[in-house]
Amino acid sequence: MTPVAELGRRAQVASRALATAPTDQKAAALRTAADLLEERAPEVLAANALDQQAAETSGMAPGPLDRLRLTDDRVASMADGLRQVANLADPVGDVLEEWTTAAGLAIQKVRVPLGVVAIIYENRPNVTSDAGGLCLMSGNAALLRGSATALESNRAVTGVLRDALAKVDLPDDAIVLVDDASHDTVVEVMRLTEYVDCLIPRGGPDLVGSVRENATVPVIIDGDGNCHVYVDAGADLEQALAIVVNSKLQRPSVCNAAESLVVHESVADEFVPRVSEALAAKGVELVGDSAAQALAPMGAATDDDFGREFLDLKLSVAVTPTLDAAIAHINRYGTGHTEVIVTRDADAARRFTTEVDAAVVIHNASSRFTDGERFGFGAEIGISTQKLHARGPMALRELTTYKYVVHGDGQVVS
Amino acid sequence: MTPVAELGRRAQVASRALATAPTDQKAAALRTAADLLEERAPEVLAANALDQQAAETSGMAPGPLDRLRLTDDRVASMADGLRQVANLADPVGDVLEEWTTAAGLAIQKVRVPLGVVAIIYENRPNVTSDAGGLCLMSGNAALLRGSATALESNRAVTGVLRDALAKVDLPDDAIVLVDDASHDTVVEVMRLTEYVDCLIPRGGPDLVGSVRENATVPVIIDGDGNCHVYVDAGADLEQALAIVVNSKLQRPSVCNAAESLVVHESVADEFVPRVSEALAAKGVELVGDSAAQALAPMGAATDDDFGREFLDLKLSVAVTPTLDAAIAHINRYGTGHTEVIVTRDADAARRFTTEVDAAVVIHNASSRFTDGERFGFGAEIGISTQKLHARGPMALRELTTYKYVVHGDGQVVS
Repeated sequence: MTPVAELGRRAQVASRALATAPTDQKAAALRTAADLLEERAPEVLAANALDQQAAETSGMAPGPLDRLRLTDDRVASMADGLRQVANLADPVGDVLEEWTTAAGLAIQKVRVPLGVVAIIYENRPNVTSDAGGLCLMSGNAALLRGSATALESNRAVTGVLRDALAKVDLPDDAIVLVDDASHDTVVEVMRLTEYVDCLIPRGGPDLVGSVRENATVPVIIDGDGNCHVYVDAGADLEQALAIVVNSKLQRPSVCNAAESLVVHESVADEFVPRVSEALAAKGVELVGDSAAQALAPMGAATDDDFGREFLDLKLSVAVTPTLDAAIAHINRYGTGHTEVIVTRDADAARRFTTEVDAAVVIHNASSRFTDGERFGFGAEIGISTQKLHARGPMALRELTTYKYVVHGDGQVVS
Repeated sequence: MTPVAELGRRAQVASRALATAPTDQKAAALRTAADLLEERAPEVLAANALDQQAAETSGMAPGPLDRLRLTDDRVASMADGLRQVANLADPVGDVLEEWTTAAGLAIQKVRVPLGVVAIIYENRPNVTSDAGGLCLMSGNAALLRGSATALESNRAVTGVLRDALAKVDLPDDAIVLVDDASHDTVVEVMRLTEYVDCLIPRGGPDLVGSVRENATVPVIIDGDGNCHVYVDAGADLEQALAIVVNSKLQRPSVCNAAESLVVHESVADEFVPRVSEALAAKGVELVGDSAAQALAPMGAATDDDFGREFLDLKLSVAVTPTLDAAIAHINRYGTGHTEVIVTRDADAARRFTTEVDAAVVIHNASSRFTDGERFGFGAEIGISTQKLHARGPMALRELTTYKYVVHGDGQVVS
């Protein structure tokens, strides 16, 4: 058995205990972990300093370097995150439905943990505690595989979480870290069908592509967000301007930021110049189709531009003759994440929200609201862009499955 | 674009129309298809005769040959199946939850179809109408890929279903058949990420293995059932005998038949000889561990026997010293399908149903009850043995996902 398979096996054994652990015990583990994380912040920061040093030496860019960096504040916020999760309602054991069958069997559909959840993630040590905490509270064992660049930090954080589990008499193998961050181990995690019940990759298109290609375990894809804002013929243009600016600029580097603007031609003459001016003033580069280009200074958008998640100060603009054309454009180029319509026309809103195929369809609000915390889930382990299992923001309930518990009194099938 | 990709594209276009089609129209399509199927039975039977002829020539075994064969009665029962599905409640549009967020956004979680559901199946032409009908009623387009040996039959049945769709003004591409049954096309279907939202393979371990290895689209595995019946210390042995015999023998070739018997040692002396005699009388071969072998005539069970789905008149027998040991045995060898405990001890039943990790855990009834129709779902497209998305018997609701529909009045994120 390889070291990764052995980790998987240990996590599976631990997952059986976690699955039946009472809520109080799981919450105590999280609160203990939060306290320990703050107590042992110097140890965690020292480990992180090693990662940072190596990253600087290797010439890591400022963005990733910042994501890698831990500080006292960031450790405190990781601890607070764990405390928040400890306060969330435990979904395990919820009876989702119950009925009696024709044969007199009493059936309950009961929410249970998935088992072993594997998370493959990039250069962010905070994911170690965030993801570990959510898995734990939902009764799952977590098999974590972070990036090589954060290995020392992840070891330190995982060490704290495991000690906390042991302190409350839960198996410390409920959180395990793949301690060898070579490429082989990441592929091995994707193929641990015997031990992994669900894999959530958290990273860019390269990671997602590798998972699609290599994974044999069940996967939830936390994919790109090529999010559109559609400004309808019936839009309040003042409101539309605020929504486009917020969707694009409030945090351009994240998946729920807008990447594409679609404008109905009846309001394009007025809206495109206004929005273009407002965005240009904030440094946003626009690229558009010929109709948009005729209305404001911008380059030509290629097909690739319309399909791309820029994650940057860039926005594609399309002008469409009808609501139907806007829906078709969005269904063609969208990634099924979040799509927004701005309109006062209830019928247009109804058609858009029904016919656009995305996890979240928003009428008259910013795309930035697609988020577990803003949805009221209290946390978020990712945003699913696939349709199987979970769609949109995922928190505790999305880390569960169900089983059917059937009681009879001797029934047989005739 | 390859022919298979082109089929996928056409199915995706059709799926947009199906997704918003009213219940009445979908039900009318199914009833029309049922009528047409009976009307055009001679055409369907003639096509099936060609498949049978080729199969006989190639020396197909009697079992598969029987599964391939259509008769007037079997066509009538396919038609009846479609009429039954037409009467089921339409899950599309159900509001699963609704709430208002802190920012004042009104969120609805609404049930929607998956989109394009691909089904890869073996030598049974009735799956064409069964699966096609369930996809249609749940608002999905179906991309069907049956076996080469049933190609003529599948063409004929698909032709009838497509004509029925057209008659009620639904796009006939909502049901498409991959008309080239070469090995390449089956792998291509597994990798149509642009068009396929969900793949359900219906077949044996070879097909499931190939899907795990090759699929890049999201998959629901309809896997093996190595189902156990555990006879507890607290069992009513008369009831246990009836349940074991029924679970093993009522239909030995299907996934919810029992393959393994586990007996608590305190009742083994009495129960193993009784059950062994009853099963031997019906031609069942037993293989057991040493404790079981000491109690009744049977061969030695290998590790492979304990892990195998025999689908035949064979049963493995293990004697365990405790309930814990029984649960551990089942969690080790089970496939997560259906596990049964027979006991009058409520605490043992509670522990078994909680700690055994399977889609369906049954107390005091036959394993054969794990079935969409017997559960009251009105139909069944398969039984999921994975934990993501759907677990256990799957019918219309399991062929849906959800989207979040969000209404605001200009909210932006600050």
